[in-house]
Amino acid sequence: MTMPKHYAIGVDLGGTNLRAALVSEAGEIIEKVRVSSSGDAMSEIEKAVRGLLRDGVKGVGIGAAGVLNKESQTVLNSPNLPEMNGRTFGDLKLGVPVVVENDANAAVLGEKWLGAGKEFDSFVLITLGTGIGGGIFHDGKLMDVAAELGHMSVEAGGLSCPCGSTGCLERYASARAIVDAAIKGLEEGTESLLNDCCGGNKYRMTSEDVFAAACEGDNFARETLKDAGRYLGVGIANVINLLSPRAIVLTGGLIGAWDIYVKEAMKEASRRAFKNLYESTKILPSPLGGDDSGVLGAAALVFNE
Amino acid sequence: MTMPKHYAIGVDLGGTNLRAALVSEAGEIIEKVRVSSSGDAMSEIEKAVRGLLRDGVKGVGIGAAGVLNKESQTVLNSPNLPEMNGRTFGDLKLGVPVVVENDANAAVLGEKWLGAGKEFDSFVLITLGTGIGGGIFHDGKLMDVAAELGHMSVEAGGLSCPCGSTGCLERYASARAIVDAAIKGLEEGTESLLNDCCGGNKYRMTSEDVFAAACEGDNFARETLKDAGRYLGVGIANVINLLSPRAIVLTGGLIGAWDIYVKEAMKEASRRAFKNLYESTKILPSPLGGDDSGVLGAAALVFNE
Repeated sequence: MTMPKHYAIGVDLGGTNLRAALVSEAGEIIEKVRVSSSGDAMSEIEKAVRGLLRDGVKGVGIGAAGVLNKESQTVLNSPNLPEMNGRTFGDLKLGVPVVVENDANAAVLGEKWLGAGKEFDSFVLITLGTGIGGGIFHDGKLMDVAAELGHMSVEAGGLSCPCGSTGCLERYASARAIVDAAIKGLEEGTESLLNDCCGGNKYRMTSEDVFAAACEGDNFARETLKDAGRYLGVGIANVINLLSPRAIVLTGGLIGAWDIYVKEAMKEASRRAFKNLYESTKILPSPLGGDDSGVLGAAALVFNE
Repeated sequence: MTMPKHYAIGVDLGGTNLRAALVSEAGEIIEKVRVSSSGDAMSEIEKAVRGLLRDGVKGVGIGAAGVLNKESQTVLNSPNLPEMNGRTFGDLKLGVPVVVENDANAAVLGEKWLGAGKEFDSFVLITLGTGIGGGIFHDGKLMDVAAELGHMSVEAGGLSCPCGSTGCLERYASARAIVDAAIKGLEEGTESLLNDCCGGNKYRMTSEDVFAAACEGDNFARETLKDAGRYLGVGIANVINLLSPRAIVLTGGLIGAWDIYVKEAMKEASRRAFKNLYESTKILPSPLGGDDSGVLGAAALVFNE
């Protein structure tokens, strides 16, 4: 007789895509789906979860970008998913218990469980995708705080942000910021391989396109990534000077651009942070991969209950 | 027969002044001294402590600005007391045990013991003096982290800071920054009551002089304080978006300028921080008074041992 297996469904509702996966207790991804969340996110979640449900599923963990009320399972303020503001995950009819958490906080639990956080008692996770998020693991515990790293102002009088403030880190160092800066440069007539990308429609450009062009030697693409990296470095230095973590774990799609974007960030952070603090902080990529850490973290919410 | 009383000596080595006090277990200040630390801080501390020592003193607590190695009691990096870098408090020959802590972290313990922190399980202290420091009390405990709030970059490409970075909050919102900005304005020929302050020698100006001139209706002095206040507001918003504390407690000499400087900061922070987070954060002055919270916090280090 074999022991019955336990599973959880992890849902990652971050930026432009919705990801969901069936995850075993051992942290194995059994099956996953990815849908572009152009439709109503709530019905997309319901559909994705129904497709993954099976015997042995203990619950559904949802990691969602923004500030949540976890008891009422309501989205209070999500600058990147404004249509979710005021929506309540408890309204989903899934037939199994639902646990919700800020997406970056969920990813922190995923990193602690299976990723770069395993060996650290105190680390900060920075999620680098469409937006920038964060989560703080301190003294053996996930800190139940906002950790909205992307909405730390690093240019007080700078670009305005959908959150209502100006100069937020996210406006300078996220995938969206990189694409915005690249499009702006092209609109101003800058020569670049990027003029030919995306079948000639630059408005369909992604940060991957910018990285690909940089790797082909395109100077403009390279400088655009470096500018964003320098801002990420400002953010990293601020985190180090405030929280002096043992490690900073980077995750999300942009870590694919490590050699240009993150290396520039590390250079900048090393110039700015207190030297002794910088030297005692490891800066690491998540080994879970940008795509999976969100769903694994969301599944961890269920197993940690 | 009366019970023997227990005392601690608290030493506050912050910016330009050294303060020391004999403090009872009940938090009463029995005697205090204040010396301008123009001489060697180590010998000044030794002298001040010897003057306060008496039977029943359990130890000396020292709160010092900067990043410390608490085990070796060494100052690792103190942008505002550069002459202390590399010095070790253990070298003091005082005859009683010595405990050291970052000055703002010590003040956090003082606030929790006797001040605004009494009723909060999670609060952030911001010390507003010559420099800007901070300490974080979370979930019933002082967080053993750098909390160098003054060295959070809020204008990435801004003014350079003695710490080596640029655009640090401290360069825009501290007492030193206010005085620097006022002197710069006067040097550029701005009309202001401040031209007549300090016996005509503007280089002796203090932030109190700027506040006094503002209260007399001086527009330049008022705007200088408001500019600094707006930057403090950026810093407060960043703290709220990152750490969503129940309260932010402000202490240090500058809270004397509450009606102009702090009120402007609160206005700015309310515009920038996530609305729901701002609304659930109380912003309060320390009831201990800017002058005493440091020495009381340093004494708390001894009683908490």
